[in-house]
Order: sequence, then C-alpha cells, then structure tokens
Amino acid sequence: MSLSPLDSPMWQDLFGSAMARDCLGDDALVAAMIRVEVALAEACEAQGLTPEGSGARIASALSDAPLSPADLAEGAARDGVPIPALLAALRARLDAQAADALHWGATSQDIVDSATVLCLRDFAARMGTEADAVLDRLAELAGAEAETVMLARTRTQGAVPTTFGAVVADWGMGLADAKERLTEAAARLCDLSLHGAAGTDGALGARADAIRDDMAGRLGLKANPTPWHRQRTRISDFAAASAAIAMQAGRIGADLALLAATGIAELRLSGGGSSAMPHKVNPVRAEAAQSLARFAAHLQGAVTEAALHVSQRDGAAWGLEWLSLRPLCGASAAALDNIARALDGLQPNRAAMAQNLANAGIGPFSERLSYLLAAQMPRSDARDAMARALATDDPVAALRAAYPELNWTDAMDPLAAAGHAPRLARAFSTSRGPTT
Amino acid sequence: MSLSPLDSPMWQDLFGSAMARDCLGDDALVAAMIRVEVALAEACEAQGLTPEGSGARIASALSDAPLSPADLAEGAARDGVPIPALLAALRARLDAQAADALHWGATSQDIVDSATVLCLRDFAARMGTEADAVLDRLAELAGAEAETVMLARTRTQGAVPTTFGAVVADWGMGLADAKERLTEAAARLCDLSLHGAAGTDGALGARADAIRDDMAGRLGLKANPTPWHRQRTRISDFAAASAAIAMQAGRIGADLALLAATGIAELRLSGGGSSAMPHKVNPVRAEAAQSLARFAAHLQGAVTEAALHVSQRDGAAWGLEWLSLRPLCGASAAALDNIARALDGLQPNRAAMAQNLANAGIGPFSERLSYLLAAQMPRSDARDAMARALATDDPVAALRAAYPELNWTDAMDPLAAAGHAPRLARAFSTSRGPTT
Amino acid sequence: MSLSPLDSPMWQDLFGSAMARDCLGDDALVAAMIRVEVALAEACEAQGLTPEGSGARIASALSDAPLSPADLAEGAARDGVPIPALLAALRARLDAQAADALHWGATSQDIVDSATVLCLRDFAARMGTEADAVLDRLAELAGAEAETVMLARTRTQGAVPTTFGAVVADWGMGLADAKERLTEAAARLCDLSLHGAAGTDGALGARADAIRDDMAGRLGLKANPTPWHRQRTRISDFAAASAAIAMQAGRIGADLALLAATGIAELRLSGGGSSAMPHKVNPVRAEAAQSLARFAAHLQGAVTEAALHVSQRDGAAWGLEWLSLRPLCGASAAALDNIARALDGLQPNRAAMAQNLANAGIGPFSERLSYLLAAQMPRSDARDAMARALATDDPVAALRAAYPELNWTDAMDPLAAAGHAPRLARAFSTSRGPTT
Amino acid sequence: MSLSPLDSPMWQDLFGSAMARDCLGDDALVAAMIRVEVALAEACEAQGLTPEGSGARIASALSDAPLSPADLAEGAARDGVPIPALLAALRARLDAQAADALHWGATSQDIVDSATVLCLRDFAARMGTEADAVLDRLAELAGAEAETVMLARTRTQGAVPTTFGAVVADWGMGLADAKERLTEAAARLCDLSLHGAAGTDGALGARADAIRDDMAGRLGLKANPTPWHRQRTRISDFAAASAAIAMQAGRIGADLALLAATGIAELRLSGGGSSAMPHKVNPVRAEAAQSLARFAAHLQGAVTEAALHVSQRDGAAWGLEWLSLRPLCGASAAALDNIARALDGLQPNRAAMAQNLANAGIGPFSERLSYLLAAQMPRSDARDAMARALATDDPVAALRAAYPELNWTDAMDPLAAAGHAPRLARAFSTSRGPTT
Repeated sequence: MSLSPLDSPMWQDLFGSAMARDCLGDDALVAAMIRVEVALAEACEAQGLTPEGSGARIASALSDAPLSPADLAEGAARDGVPIPALLAALRARLDAQAADALHWGATSQDIVDSATVLCLRDFAARMGTEADAVLDRLAELAGAEAETVMLARTRTQGAVPTTFGAVVADWGMGLADAKERLTEAAARLCDLSLHGAAGTDGALGARADAIRDDMAGRLGLKANPTPWHRQRTRISDFAAASAAIAMQAGRIGADLALLAATGIAELRLSGGGSSAMPHKVNPVRAEAAQSLARFAAHLQGAVTEAALHVSQRDGAAWGLEWLSLRPLCGASAAALDNIARALDGLQPNRAAMAQNLANAGIGPFSERLSYLLAAQMPRSDARDAMARALATDDPVAALRAAYPELNWTDAMDPLAAAGHAPRLARAFSTSRGPTT
Repeated sequence: MSLSPLDSPMWQDLFGSAMARDCLGDDALVAAMIRVEVALAEACEAQGLTPEGSGARIASALSDAPLSPADLAEGAARDGVPIPALLAALRARLDAQAADALHWGATSQDIVDSATVLCLRDFAARMGTEADAVLDRLAELAGAEAETVMLARTRTQGAVPTTFGAVVADWGMGLADAKERLTEAAARLCDLSLHGAAGTDGALGARADAIRDDMAGRLGLKANPTPWHRQRTRISDFAAASAAIAMQAGRIGADLALLAATGIAELRLSGGGSSAMPHKVNPVRAEAAQSLARFAAHLQGAVTEAALHVSQRDGAAWGLEWLSLRPLCGASAAALDNIARALDGLQPNRAAMAQNLANAGIGPFSERLSYLLAAQMPRSDARDAMARALATDDPVAALRAAYPELNWTDAMDPLAAAGHAPRLARAFSTSRGPTT
Repeated sequence: MSLSPLDSPMWQDLFGSAMARDCLGDDALVAAMIRVEVALAEACEAQGLTPEGSGARIASALSDAPLSPADLAEGAARDGVPIPALLAALRARLDAQAADALHWGATSQDIVDSATVLCLRDFAARMGTEADAVLDRLAELAGAEAETVMLARTRTQGAVPTTFGAVVADWGMGLADAKERLTEAAARLCDLSLHGAAGTDGALGARADAIRDDMAGRLGLKANPTPWHRQRTRISDFAAASAAIAMQAGRIGADLALLAATGIAELRLSGGGSSAMPHKVNPVRAEAAQSLARFAAHLQGAVTEAALHVSQRDGAAWGLEWLSLRPLCGASAAALDNIARALDGLQPNRAAMAQNLANAGIGPFSERLSYLLAAQMPRSDARDAMARALATDDPVAALRAAYPELNWTDAMDPLAAAGHAPRLARAFSTSRGPTT
Repeated sequence: MSLSPLDSPMWQDLFGSAMARDCLGDDALVAAMIRVEVALAEACEAQGLTPEGSGARIASALSDAPLSPADLAEGAARDGVPIPALLAALRARLDAQAADALHWGATSQDIVDSATVLCLRDFAARMGTEADAVLDRLAELAGAEAETVMLARTRTQGAVPTTFGAVVADWGMGLADAKERLTEAAARLCDLSLHGAAGTDGALGARADAIRDDMAGRLGLKANPTPWHRQRTRISDFAAASAAIAMQAGRIGADLALLAATGIAELRLSGGGSSAMPHKVNPVRAEAAQSLARFAAHLQGAVTEAALHVSQRDGAAWGLEWLSLRPLCGASAAALDNIARALDGLQPNRAAMAQNLANAGIGPFSERLSYLLAAQMPRSDARDAMARALATDDPVAALRAAYPELNWTDAMDPLAAAGHAPRLARAFSTSRGPTT
C-alpha cells in the first residue's frame, strides 16, 4: 500500500508510470544488483583473482532465480543498504568456493551505484522512446495545423496572430531539447562504480584497473579509475534532465488546459466527468501533467541537495538521494505519459480559433499596422496614428480612412500577420521525418 | 511496486511507516470516503431530504464490504478523482431508492476532503501516541543522565560542559513542541466539507446548514458554513506541523550520529554492518531519520505551493497536494520511528563523555573562569588574564598561581560548570510524569 | 546592488516590500540587537550582577547612535555572526566599567535570536495591518457584489452560477485565516533567548531566571527557562504562516489574472504596457503575486530544513535560516502588497459576467435542474431526463416541453442557482465590520 | 537595504559574492540590455531596415552613459518588465530618427533574455576562473599530501586508511566535474533571442534571419531561428550546473568542518571567534559554504519550476525565474568563495591524522587482512579468523600468533593499506598541470 499517488493502487493510472516502475522499481534494482555481482565475479575470475570456474558458476546460479525485494527488507533496514542481505541470500545458492568469490573487492556502494546506473540507463532509453512517440504526434499535428491561425496570448492577454501549428511546434522543440538533455545525462552517468570501501581500490589492489575494464565491458558501462561514491553531480544532472521533461510536459498540459477552458474552447480534450455536474469535461490529463511537473521541481531540489556528502560515505545524503531520485523519475515519466494520453483525444477547433481572433478586433494587428505605417512615416508618427485610431469606436475604419493607400487586405490578413509561425510549424514537423 | 522508498518492499522497513500507510493509504482513504457518504446519507434522511430508511439501508449495505482501491483506479484516472467510480461501485450494492439518495448535494471534493480530514486526524492521533512513547523514553534518559557531564559542542568545536541529560531534554522539548503543533493543526483541520459543486450549497439549498450540523456530528467533525475547497492553509499548516516532527527527529538523528562517530564515541548505537568492513557499526537509523527529515522539508515546499488554487476548483493544485501530502506525513512518521528504534539500542558511554571533556583542557572552563575572575576585577582585566594564561603551556597552573584565592575545586568542577543543565534535564524528565 | 529582485533597485517596486525591508533589514536587526544588549545590561544592573549605573549609562550611550550594518560586515564574515564586532563597536562608546557590564552572561545566539524575534514581531504586526487593509477592501467589494452573478469555474470548465461577491469573500476568508495563523505564530515566537554559550545558564548562574524575567519585561517578550537555540519549530512555523499569506495572495493573483484574461474579461485591472503591442494591458501585479507565492513556497522548504541543527549550535543550519527566512517574509509581504495594488485598480464588469454565464447555456443549471426534477421523480430518472435533454440542440426547450409544471422562471434564475453565494459574500463582508 | 544575506550590508562578506553582483546585478543587466539594443539597431541598419547612420548614432549615444537601474524601477513595476521604461530613457538621448530605429522588431522578452544570456555567460566565465584557482590550490594540496595517511570515515565510522591527498583529490575532481557542466551549460545557453511579440518574427518579417545572424555576430551569441521565449530548459540546466558547484563547495565545507571538529582535529582552519568562549576557533567559512549549498538546492527547485510557462508569455513563470535564478548563482559563487577562503587558512595536522588512525586499532586494517588471509585459505575461513581475532583483547597479536607467516610489516602498513589513494591524489594533482 503506497502513500505516494505515483504508485498507489487507486492513483497510479493517473499519477504513475508503469514504465518507470518497471525500470526503476525494487525488482529492477535487485536484478541489476545481481547482474553487477555476476559481472564482478566473472571479471575477477577472468583476471585471475578468484578460482577458475567461479564466475561461470555464479552466473549460472544467480541469473535464473530472481530474488524478491521484500526478502531484503529486514537486512536493508538493519544495514542501511541491501547488499549484506543480498549477499547472504545469493551465497546460499552457491557452493563454498563460489560463495567466497562473490563480491570480491567491492563495497556495498559500488554495487548499488552501478546497479542504479543500469536502471537509469534503461529508464532514459524508454523515456526517449516515449518522448519520440509524443514528438511524432506533435510533428504530425504541427504540420497539419501549420496555417491554422489563432490568437497568441502573452501575459493572459490577446497578443498577435500565430498558428496552432507554431504553438505545437514550440511544445515539440521544448520537449525535444529536454529529451536530448536526458540522453546526454544518461551517457555521462554510465560509469561503473568499483572502488572498494573508501574508494581506494584497497582490496582490488594492483588489478583494480583491469577488473574495472573487464567488468565495465560486460555491463556496457565505462570504466573510470576515479571513485564517484560521493561525486554525485552526474546523478543530480540526470535528475535535472528528467525534471526538464516533466516541466515541458507540464507546460504542454498548462496550454492544453488553457486552450480547452470555457471562454476559449479552442481545443476539445477527452476528459473526466464530475460527480455533481453532468455537462462537464475536465482536462484531467492536462492537469495531472502540471501537478506532476511542479512536484518534480520540488523533488529536483532534494536530489540536488543529496549531492552534499560528508566524509567518504554519507548515509544520510545517500538516503536522501534514494528517497527523491526514483520518485522524480517516476513523476517525469507520468507527466509525459499524461501528455501522450491528452494528445490522443485532442481535437483542435479551427472555427473557435478563428472566432477568438476575430473577437479581438484590431489589437492583434496593431503591432503589424505600426510597422506597416512606419514604412511610410516616422515610427513615432505611426505609433501616434495607431493610438488615435485605437481611441475611436472603429479603429480599423479610422485607419483605412486616414491611410487608404495601405494594402488593407494584406494588412489585416491573419496568416500574413502570423509571420513565421507556419515556417516554425513546418520546420519542427519536418525535423521529425516524413509523416504520412 | 513502489518507486518511493517510503513504501517499496525493499526499503519500507527503513524509510517507511506502517502506521502512516495504515492511516493514510488508499485503503484508509476509500474507507473514509465511504464513511463520509454514509454520514451524508444518514443526515439527508434525518433532515427529510431523502426517503425514510434510505440512510440506514446505505449504512448497512456499505459498511461491511470494503472496496479495493485498485477497483477505482481506472475511474480515478478518467475523472481525475475517484468519486464517480466510487459512487458507481456503491450504487451497485444498493436498491434504486437508496442509490438515488447517495451523495445527495455533494461534490467530489466534499467527499475527498472530508475523508482526508478523517484520515489525517487518525494520523495525528497515532503520531501523538508514537511521539509520546519517544518522549517517555527521552524523559527517562534525561532523568538518568541529568548529571552526566559531557562537552557541549557549538559550531563543531568543544564549548562548555553540559550534561547528557540536558542534551536529551533539549531533544525532548523540541519534539514535544512539534507534537503540540501537530495536535493543534489537527484540531484546526477538522472541518467537514459539504458545499456542493462550487461551494454555494447549490443543491442542498436551505437545509445545507442543518445537514452539515447533523453530518458533522456523525463524523466527529466541525460544521463550517464556509467552503474550504480552495482555502488550503489548514492543510499546509498540518503538513508544516508534521514536517516539524520530522525535523526534530532529524536533529536527534544528527546528534546521535555525531555522538556515535569515531573520534567522539560517547554513545553506542545498535546498527548495521558493512559488506566490506567487518568492524563497523553504522548508525543506520540515525542517518535515515536525517534523510527523511530533509526529504520532508522539500515536500513541505510542495504542499505549501499546493495552496495556490485558481478558480473554484483547481485540479492541478489539488493533484500537487495529493502527490506531496501523504508522502510528507509518511516521511515524518518514518523519521520518528527511526528515532524510536535508535533510542532502543542507545547506550551512553559516561567514561568517554568524561574523557572527551577532560581532553579539551581548560577551554570549556574559560568562560566560567572569566566570570569568576570578573567577580574580583574588571571584566576586561579578567579577559586579559585568561588570554595570558591560554598562551602558556599549562593555563590552569598559570591561573592557579596568579589567583590562588579562587576556589579552584569549584572552578574546575565540570558539573558546576554545566550550570542549569541538570535542572533542564530534570524539568523535562518530570514534565513527562513519574517513570518507574 | 542586490541579486534578489526582492531588493534590487530595478525590481524592488514590483517584487519588493519596503515594509519588510524596514522591519527585517540589517538596520532593523542591528537596532534590535542593540536594544537587546541594552535590556540585558539594565536587567543585570537591576539584579545586582553589574555595577550600579552601568545599565543606565549603556542605555544612554547606545540608544542614540545607530550603527551602520556595513561596519559589522568584516566581523560577521570573520566570526560567522555579527555580535563580536558589534560588541567591539559598542564598547568603544562606553566607559570601561560599562563596557565590562555589556553582554553579561549572554552568547551571540541569545542576542541574534532575541533581536530576530523583535523584528519578526514588528513584521507580523505590520503584515497584519496590511492584510487588514486588503481585507477591508475585499469586504467592501464582497458586499457590493454579493448578488453579481457569474460563472463559477472548476477544473477550467464552466460549472454552476456563483456571485462575484462570493468569490471575493472566499479570497477574504482565506486571507483572514492565514493572517490569524501569522498572529498566532508571532505570539508563540515571542520568547526571549538568554541562556549562554551552550544553553546552560553557565555564566548567569543562580540569577538566570530573575534576569530573564526582568529583561523579557523590558522587551515585551516572554521569559522561558528553556533554551531554544536549536529548537526552531517556532521559527519555521512563523515562516509557514508567512508563506500561507503569500499563497493566499498568489491565489487571488491567479484568479485576478484569469478573470482579466482575454476570452473571459470579467475584470479590468490597471496594468502594464507592452513594448511591442500598444493595445495590451497586462495583469502585472496579479502575476507578480503568483511568482512571489511560488518562490515563497520553495523558501519555506529551506526554512523548514534549517531546523535540522546538530550539536549545541549549528552554524550551517543557522546560516540556512538566515538565508531563507528574511527573503521568505519579504516575498510574502510583496505578494500581499501586489494584491493590494491590483485591487486598487480593479473594476468588475458585471455585463461580461452575465454574458459569459449566458453563453454557457444550460450547463451551469444542469445540477440544479437535476435536483428540481429529482423532487418529482427518482433521481436516476431525473439524471436520465437531463442526459436526454443535453443531447438535443436546445436542452432547455426540450426540458420545458417535457416538464412544463416546473417553475421555469425560478429554475433558470441565475441568482437562485447561485445558492448561498450571496450569503457567503455578506457574511464575510459584515465580519469585517460596517463599511461606509 | 537587502533582505537577503547574499547582498545585505552586514552579511555580504560572508554569504555574498562581489563577482556575482558584478556580473548579474541590475547594473550589469541594464548595461547588457543597452548592449543588446545597440546591436539590434546596428543590425537593423546594416540590413537596411532602418535609416543609414541610425545604428551608429544609437551606439555612440547609448554606450557611454550608463543608466541607473533605480530609474527603471517605477516602469518595471508598472509594466512588469523594465524595457518600456528603458526605451523611454534611451530615446530621450536620441534624435527622432534614431529614436524611431531603436528596438525595431523586438519584444521586451527578446531584450531581457538576450541580456540575461550575456550576463550569465560572463558569470560562467568568472566562476570558471574562480573554480580554477580553487582547483589549483587543491591540486597543490593533493600532491603535497598524496601519502599523508589518514582514516577514511564512512557513515560516521572509521573505515580503512586513505590519504589526505586522495580526499583532496576527490574534492577537486568533483569540483572540476561541476565546473565542466557549467561551461557546457553556458555554451548551450548562448542563443540570441529576437523573435518578436509572440515568437513569430511578426515585425521583422522576411529579414528576421539576416538580422538575427548579424546581431548575434555582434554579441558573440548564436542565432537561432527558433524562439525560446518559453523553452527554458537551458536556463534551468544552467542553474542546475551552478547549483552543482554549490553542492561541491558545500561538501568540501562539510568535510572541512568535520576534519576540524573537536575530537578529530586533523585540520586547522582560520576562523571566527565566539562572544562567550575565548578558546574557540569556529569553521565559519566551511559552515557558510554548507548553508549556501543547501539554500541553492531549494532555489534550484524554484528555477526548475519556472520552466512551466503557459501561453506565449507567462509573466508569473518569468517572474519566478527572475526571483530565483540570480540568487541561486550568487549563492553558488559565494559558496565557492567561502571554500577558497577556507583553503587559504587550512593547515593539515599530519600527526593528528596518524594518531587518529592508530587509535582506531585493527579495524581499518580488517578488510585488508581478510583479503591477505584469503590468499591462503577460503575467504569464509579468513572472515571467521578475523571475527575470532576481533573478539579478543588484542586482535593483532591474536592474528600474528595464528598466522606468523603473513608479512605483518606490510599488512599493517597504513600507506600500503591506503591502496590507490596516493595514485588518485597524484592523478588529480598532475591533471591541473605543474605546480611549483
């Protein structure tokens, strides 16, 4: 029974991510820890530190029988880390010689950190796939709506014309940027940890480098002669990149909710019902993405702070990392997933977009008119002319009367006034490859 | 499979609280929501809004068959709130007339918020009980160690003598203060929510006050004519009080870890082992309390922010509250629980305390000596005399030679130099009543 | 040159609070520290610890010549606290005997903490006054608009009718609640700190209680035999209450910005212009209140965490408190001030409110109609009837045809459908006393 | 009078950074905004949009006369952004034609964001320089202390031998990593913003790309056809990298404070005095670095959240970015500066390091002994042998008696037991180039 709506049975379909639980949950972590121990045993054997055959026997004995995380709970609580209990459980499956060869030269943090890297790498890859699916959907939408004129809104007020395709492209470019950051952060993170109790290779001695190289190769990680037991920038950087995806999802959600709001209604979303009001369609997914994004921002502060380690291992700081990192990743994945689902049911209402723009009158065209007039007169005069016109009941009529020589059809053309919006939409759309 | 170590199978014995899950988990929330619906149905019948007998039939049909939170997951994700799905499930257990009488005049938020209050009230009561147990243990310890002299440390440096009992009393008074805040916050929180879709009593009409009074009485809550759908100060205040307990637990944990650290070793804690170093006893519980406290502080920021609601109901803000409030309470309960367990295994080492104080030489007595000398000469002269003595190899000998008339036995008496420390220890100890 | 827009010369009129700087800035803190030292000197003389006349001489020498905070900067950086430098500067103004009598028995933290309490008390009082002014304005507005019908919005969607007065009353009640919390927190905070180096009354000895009583009386504080050097719950509780005001200001700001948004336009705010778009009026104050509120929420996390003190004085934790507490209070004051200014220029547009409600059609009346029908038939039948009508082009016509016996004038009366909204508006309005 | 100790006159020498104020303060921002306007004017002239000579006249009129940020305060508060007031002030210095040519095609956010990038770029460069100075000092220290044996501490407990040089190298590698992240983030950030009111190039039209290229060249920024008005990942990424430096500074501070603590005393720091205790030397700078790091972590959450923009410009989100970004950078710079100062006065106490290690007895050698024994017997037998020895009064004697064939001089050699610690120290030291 989970307290966090990220995981709890009642809430997890709204606030959770099955993918994140799959990649980062205890099951995945335990499996990864075993994988790390196996790779270590194989490397130690290959480098002649442990008896011939011990690595292979460890691999075959441990690879097939998953261990229940709950079986490690008592040990994790006693030792502050699950490794001693894990080792006891694994050794029970091994002959004496193989049991002795297990965990050679490692410290608990080596195993937990290396396993965490494996899990985060999987998570980043799956987030990338999920982001790509959203990006493809956005690209399709941006292309289709590249010339769908609508009112841009700045600081809550109608601004100038843009196109819905450009709005969508802006979502897409932001998300693509955040996804790229996560990919980079994952690549930077992929260092094996194998440095012993205080990061000095004490027990591995002269063969430490060779074993790291060998073991890293088996796990697809990078060998690094430097211990990172308490150099956590790469962890917090990964978290920041994950949070960046959440924030991009949150802002898409905020825009979706705004554009679907009563009084604007430029989008229709499929959504939830009300227990009291039968007529309502609530933008549930768009709201949840915002909740999750803001939640992720606070967790990001916690992961950042978890880098403040004191001494050669800081159980309090490490614990803060555990408490905050996985929920942050889960919140990011769930925020993105909510956007994927919200986009599934999205229907733009082109007529409403056009109508809202028309309702805004001359305002959205005033910047453009200023510059068109400024081609004929000093800009300050143009600005004054605009101001005089805006003070009348029908500013367009006043300006047309005063400046009949302007090409008024062009001047008031919403698509022309949307400038490069169609270009932005198409540039993003084509950047994602051909859509059919 | 939970992502949060507060709940995950591998971590929950270290970072979780079974009590918190019991009070605040989905099962508890669903049960409380049903309880609220039953009370509403009974009140509506009693006030003549719904048919005679409907309340009783609802109560009997719904009270015995708990509903699985997982059964509400799909609905919660669709509607953004579990109530429509809950009502559908409950109505399936009722005859048509009773089904019609269910949820009369309420909106989803009324039910969820009232149920949340019931859950938080239980949580506060149980936290109070757990805090009392810790306080009793601390009181006993403070009494026993009231005159156990040790070195106070300020800004990492040896300061003046204090007693271990005074240190423990300071922990206890801080925790007692935080507990009192939680009790107050819980009392202030206990308002029934029953105000309808937009908080206007629209559907309950003229009988709204009577139904609130009746229903509040059944639930042990306060009736409040004012809707608090988006007045969340009491929620964030409750969270702040819960976080205050976590912070007090965290600082006890920090002190325990410091006092058990190698080089100080004034306490022995039972603790965890290391996979690499057979000689170590790690202060696991004391560290976990710190991790949880710092985590709670970041969550407190999130709960605070969740008070920023826009319009008559803000799904994004409400979601942020859900995401952060229960984990914060869970982290607070787990932090306190870790302290309870750490205290179980605590053994003060009086000899080490005395030795560390002795090792510090004259330093811890210098403030006291300054004031004793200042009784005989201007204080600036006393300060100069101290400075001269501190510059010699044996400052005590230098001062004794210079001021033989001082009562040196008293001047260098550690317990005398600890001032009111024993009094503080005993005051706290006796404030908790007699211990046997 | 300040980095924080709370204080920087360019931003302080938008994000800053002159009142907060006045109450809590370095000048105020230094003045308060001197006031505390004077009160201590007077109390020590009165209780016979220091020479007759020393207190009066200290009071007269120190009360008139304010000290520049910048003069303490070097010392504060060297010592980690400004008191040693302050004492040196003050002693330079005193005769030798009075200089000796200064700071008798105190530790730096006693002075800084007591002075901080004095400053926070002033701040709370001035915040209360400013909140009262806002509350009076809200009360006036709630009264005037008690029956101004508008569309309530829940989860971005048009919900049921309410009145603008009820919306305003909800703002007011939330703010009043937060203000009351701050008043309580300030009262709870008002303990004198005077406990010596490690909180043991070491230097004050037997007369510690008498001196605390005397000194507390001079400062209008409470004497407390318990040191609170590292019991910071009352500080974080004060911060939480201050943040609660920020959050209430932020949600008023969010509502103002929403109601002034293009497409809703139920309010006109005076606001800022755009460098590019001459037609715009931006809800600058309403936005700033939201920015400040969310900022305050993150700072609240930091103040909460600053309660995690280790040992008898924790310079790192105390520093975190300094860094976060004053900016949090400043952000709260500025958020409230922005709301005060936004309300100054607020003009409700009753016609737009009515029109937006009318545009929403039958939806906002559907809950009410369900209940009216349910008075005549089973509620599930009523719900079905509503659903059938909502599926037609003109649901009202369909329902009128099907149920001609309903009082349709009443059924579709927006004010009737707003339920207790006018009552809520008037209750809040009159709770603030008569307005003329 | 600043509320934030980052800037306030009394606190700024401890918690502030003159460099950060210099790079990021209002003066720097205003100068950068003018620089951006000048570059825009020059580019517009060069591309034929504005009259010949206007760019040069603007450049010469505006470059020499700095504007006081305070003069923009009223306008910033009115408009929510300082640009309209800035333009008015600048136009007053220009002839009419040049005044008309100013700010052609730009929106306020283009100017503020581009100027912010210029300021942050300067800040990153100066942080790099300051980090390099610290890194050089650490490299020197790591080299000098490469073989200075000391006790590693994990989870507060004595672990295995390491060397002080390796500890210092770990600080250095962590800081170097964070510095590299900031350099990357600064490079990624350096996009010009010039996209007009809603990011559509509305007013610049066909020449938008040419003008961006030209203008970007003048400012040393990158031209980007994509507007980033509301794509803030690069901002929050910069903030995360800045916070990473703070966290590395904080952990150095935490280690310094620990190693200087009474009971350990392996380092001497120059530090602050106490108003009550003449014997104390407080690790003031090391504590301040920790306070600032934790503060930065909370601000990092706020900057992250500021990426959640709604619509084409979100004044509330942008304001949150302003409120949090500069203080975060300032806190990071101040944290690093405190470490630079703490290192200035640092004196390692090799004798104390050796003594503390010796005091720990066999414990720190137990892992090593296990592995040495395991070369002769099954590892589980070795572990049992160790356990039997540890249960005796003199474990070393017991083991020597049992296993006389071991090379006991080597086995108990602290430097040998420190493994690769000297190598790590030297690797870091030489990575920074030759030191003399």
